[in-house]
Amino acid sequence: MIDDVGGAKGLFLLFTGDGKGKTTAALGLAFRALGHGFPVCVIQFIKGAWQPGEVAAAKRFDDLLDFHVMGRGFTWKSDDLAKDIAVAREAWRFAKKTIGEGRHRLVILDELTYLISYKMIDEQDVIDTVASRPAGTHVVVTGRGASEKLMAAADLVTEMRAIKHPYKSGIKACKGIEF
Amino acid sequence: MIDDVGGAKGLFLLFTGDGKGKTTAALGLAFRALGHGFPVCVIQFIKGAWQPGEVAAAKRFDDLLDFHVMGRGFTWKSDDLAKDIAVAREAWRFAKKTIGEGRHRLVILDELTYLISYKMIDEQDVIDTVASRPAGTHVVVTGRGASEKLMAAADLVTEMRAIKHPYKSGIKACKGIEF
Repeated sequence: MIDDVGGAKGLFLLFTGDGKGKTTAALGLAFRALGHGFPVCVIQFIKGAWQPGEVAAAKRFDDLLDFHVMGRGFTWKSDDLAKDIAVAREAWRFAKKTIGEGRHRLVILDELTYLISYKMIDEQDVIDTVASRPAGTHVVVTGRGASEKLMAAADLVTEMRAIKHPYKSGIKACKGIEF
Repeated sequence: MIDDVGGAKGLFLLFTGDGKGKTTAALGLAFRALGHGFPVCVIQFIKGAWQPGEVAAAKRFDDLLDFHVMGRGFTWKSDDLAKDIAVAREAWRFAKKTIGEGRHRLVILDELTYLISYKMIDEQDVIDTVASRPAGTHVVVTGRGASEKLMAAADLVTEMRAIKHPYKSGIKACKGIEF
């Protein structure tokens, strides 16, 4: 797989847009790769982006899946921006190291775009890091507001567009199904 | 979950559009629900839409997950349209029965829109069936070309838009990562 047909370099996939399904699609990719028996690393840059359901599901794959929650939560709730920035940069250093090691066939950088949008980390550094990844490593970046530059660097970009959302029609969040 | 906050009825989610990530997001939802210990049923209406990776991953959840491949493949490759229609209708009857039984908290009707687009099954029947589902049952429909009517019936609609696709830039399919 992955490197047996064309993808010797691996792919850089980007899921962006304001609709639901970005992290969920990354999660689906993770399970697909795990099903193939490939080591997968998920780094979650925004605390709480993954729900207990997927964390529990992930435990059935703990022989193959490394899961790291690095973030502190959404910055607009924060009362300590300097601390947020320090945590974000440390998380990105960890991600760079993980990508560089090449131990995983798939590395998911979940909600990474927020760190770029808030200028907590340097976009060019992200692009350079992904571009110089070890052969056979796929990288997935998710999050709203990916820049044109980041999209240009990716091999595949899907924009998840919110056409309709249940909250708008008055239905409250559902644990287990909520994204 | 699911029925403990507002969603006593369960949600009808629709992933459409020409971009990658529709089936993958549904797969992510399945694993999320399985992680919660909820029974899940996946019905695949187009043969081959799921890759060996997710089938293998699904096996780790065979205590909770029912997985059915009902389709024959893409109709435009078919040499027997009458047979395709018969198979599609039988698959839809099975899906109706499954939804009606209410044994699953999440029922995924993967690539169902194609059967509607090709007039193999009746769209109003799909809408009525989903609308009358047992309480607490979530239904996910995926596939390109969902009609306005189907979108109006859904609680949540995400359009996966293809901004950029690797095939367009000359990279071939990658087993394991391919959607």
